[in-house]
Amino acid sequence: MRRFVIVGTRALASPDFRLLDLPGTSGRLDVLLRCVRAGLLVSHGVRRDTTLYLVLLGGPCAPRTLRFDGEAARYLRPDDRSLAVLAQKALQTPCETDGFVRARPGVFIARGGLDAVLTDLGGFHPVVLDEGGEDLRAAPSLPDSVYFLGDHRGFDDATRARLDALAPASVSVGPVSLHAEDVVAVVANELDRRGL
Amino acid sequence: MRRFVIVGTRALASPDFRLLDLPGTSGRLDVLLRCVRAGLLVSHGVRRDTTLYLVLLGGPCAPRTLRFDGEAARYLRPDDRSLAVLAQKALQTPCETDGFVRARPGVFIARGGLDAVLTDLGGFHPVVLDEGGEDLRAAPSLPDSVYFLGDHRGFDDATRARLDALAPASVSVGPVSLHAEDVVAVVANELDRRGL
Repeated sequence: MRRFVIVGTRALASPDFRLLDLPGTSGRLDVLLRCVRAGLLVSHGVRRDTTLYLVLLGGPCAPRTLRFDGEAARYLRPDDRSLAVLAQKALQTPCETDGFVRARPGVFIARGGLDAVLTDLGGFHPVVLDEGGEDLRAAPSLPDSVYFLGDHRGFDDATRARLDALAPASVSVGPVSLHAEDVVAVVANELDRRGL
Repeated sequence: MRRFVIVGTRALASPDFRLLDLPGTSGRLDVLLRCVRAGLLVSHGVRRDTTLYLVLLGGPCAPRTLRFDGEAARYLRPDDRSLAVLAQKALQTPCETDGFVRARPGVFIARGGLDAVLTDLGGFHPVVLDEGGEDLRAAPSLPDSVYFLGDHRGFDDATRARLDALAPASVSVGPVSLHAEDVVAVVANELDRRGL
């Protein structure tokens, strides 16, 4: 079981963005959606063993969290627009819904941000992707590892404090600071190699 | 200097695609454009040392090739739509243009497919990304290596024969068959680690 949590500092928790200008109107939800592609989709298939949480901290309905489960996902397409349409439909779920409820096949939504995620995860081994961390290739990877990433702005202070309180492992994918989706791709590749 | 060549079996060599349905109307040019993002863009910056060639084998104007040079690129944005707008503008260059001509800042276009690329590359060390190849992490990487990838359909027969004639190294990124853009991300990460 592979799990990634991507925190969108300003990503809209409501469906009020324009598909014609996703980066400019969604608080960079596009960054998070490309992580879904990188984490869930492979050549001609879906990673059934992978779940991604997108923590949405922007807009009037925030915080909310989308969960994409590879096991139940259907009709997932790799392009930004298709993923944005899917997210927009899921975000039409009323804001006040508690717990993770199914919005589309394989797509769930909950009120709450990191706390909702932590409750949903139960027990796990937290790993934060961080430029100053231990090299991914040298770091242990446990079956219950959960990988936390920031968006293009990194983590906000509250999220960083909440994560620090979990005493996570800190891991770096390499010497260059990459887009979140490329970090997901590199971590997934490392796990593929380890047979995890 | 890093160089990638991605061959789009049916990717349109003309601007006659719809931004509202890029995957459905462009011969999956979207797959190639996401490789441009993975190859050229990092967190808050551009890889100035990287060039990507997109070989477009689809439509009435084919074959044509787009070249994206990190060194001269400006205003590159990571989302599908922005990259597609950029490509569409570049593809408005008349079909019969010989050699690589500048279409936009850092974006060049030439008539011809793989032959135009090989002429432009001059001397180089060819590496084909292939599921059955040697492990990327064990493979040598030379400063003049050029990495060739297929799109979601792999290579067409003519391209495969042309590449085989170059006696390339064959390299695999791991045990799972990945999207082309993730392959680019993993190769770039390996080169980052090697300081190449």
